[in-house]
Amino acid sequence: MTLRFGILVFPNVQQLDLTGPYEVLASAKGAEVELIWKDRSPVTSSTRLALNPTVTFDDCPPLDVLCVPGGGGVNALLEDKAVLDFVRQRAAQARYVTSVCSGALVLGAAGLLKGKRATTHWYAHDFLEEFGAVPVDARIAEDGNLITAGGVTSGIDFGLALVARLLGQAEAETVQLSLEYAPAPPFRSGTPAEASPAVLAEAKERLAGSRRVREEMFARWRDARAAAAPTRIHG
Amino acid sequence: MTLRFGILVFPNVQQLDLTGPYEVLASAKGAEVELIWKDRSPVTSSTRLALNPTVTFDDCPPLDVLCVPGGGGVNALLEDKAVLDFVRQRAAQARYVTSVCSGALVLGAAGLLKGKRATTHWYAHDFLEEFGAVPVDARIAEDGNLITAGGVTSGIDFGLALVARLLGQAEAETVQLSLEYAPAPPFRSGTPAEASPAVLAEAKERLAGSRRVREEMFARWRDARAAAAPTRIHG
Repeated sequence: MTLRFGILVFPNVQQLDLTGPYEVLASAKGAEVELIWKDRSPVTSSTRLALNPTVTFDDCPPLDVLCVPGGGGVNALLEDKAVLDFVRQRAAQARYVTSVCSGALVLGAAGLLKGKRATTHWYAHDFLEEFGAVPVDARIAEDGNLITAGGVTSGIDFGLALVARLLGQAEAETVQLSLEYAPAPPFRSGTPAEASPAVLAEAKERLAGSRRVREEMFARWRDARAAAAPTRIHG
Repeated sequence: MTLRFGILVFPNVQQLDLTGPYEVLASAKGAEVELIWKDRSPVTSSTRLALNPTVTFDDCPPLDVLCVPGGGGVNALLEDKAVLDFVRQRAAQARYVTSVCSGALVLGAAGLLKGKRATTHWYAHDFLEEFGAVPVDARIAEDGNLITAGGVTSGIDFGLALVARLLGQAEAETVQLSLEYAPAPPFRSGTPAEASPAVLAEAKERLAGSRRVREEMFARWRDARAAAAPTRIHG
């Protein structure tokens, strides 16, 4: 039986958000992974690696799992009707709806996080509430058929958890062994709680540009909602 | 100052061997990462993800770090003169010569592991001795300017260690935090020692095909050496 995973790919995607879970999922028995975008032209990730979509929104086959990765390119998706429509439509049909990193914000903008436990990259976590989500401080958050992963590398842990759910723990353990996933980070700085104040400040500084655009976007939406509200009350 | 990393890309490369360290290295300040192959046509990795070379053997700029990832496609490289010549030539000029996973075997075939401490994927580890290496049972092995990493996901740990060496620990910690590298593998099965006998047997079974080709290749080389030896003694 073929299990079909569909991962969204888009300009300025954070490639490891995508390639990490891709490798885990594609290593599972009977799995096929498609990279989905509007057209098949190569897409440039935020660190310059080119990724080639394998299917388009129009010819994408039915999916068992939809996955939205994150990265700076997420900002453009949050107001992209074609993307949000595709995500909503496929989410209604897939067995699992998932995200890695700031990909959770795309699920949020598509209205899929309302009342749901969810997580995302540590520097996007405060945006979850704006979408009515229940923010969870965890590397993987599960709520029914919604599974969201934390920042970038959490996509590997997420991929293994998902394989276990779909194909059993033995299959996930086999994939984990074949990928020699026995991580040994050389430093204790992978989360804001572990990192030194100086390292945390520097990491925030590097992510400041895309964070600012995101903040402005959310402020604009709040203003639009506020402007619309009295009309509804008095209308 | 630009730090230039060159990663070999080839048909049937294990993409996470490449994309893991790529993301770590490319996230470091002033870093540029090139994907090197004979030509610029897209290359298909072992799990079907397409990767696009950015430079060729002929127009590759000077490299600070040469990195050879692994995968089933390694077998074809072990007897590919153009590849081995390129690796040898660049290794002589680079500040660091590195590999991830079975990419170590390519360094071995190029004659770069003789008398050197080295590691590789657990199911290729016994081949290291054939190249005169001193096999090290570790996720990262360092010997002078030679750094070899274990299987697939060890490329992330390796990337961070390398960034620390080139740009200092604070830079490596900043990259680790931005990629939220605080791994939480859902199972304890990432090494043969941790995995159950059934999982170990199943993982070996899946890697059996490329392992057999490799064994035959080494047997052929041993025969060729044995046939050549008396000529040298009596000649």
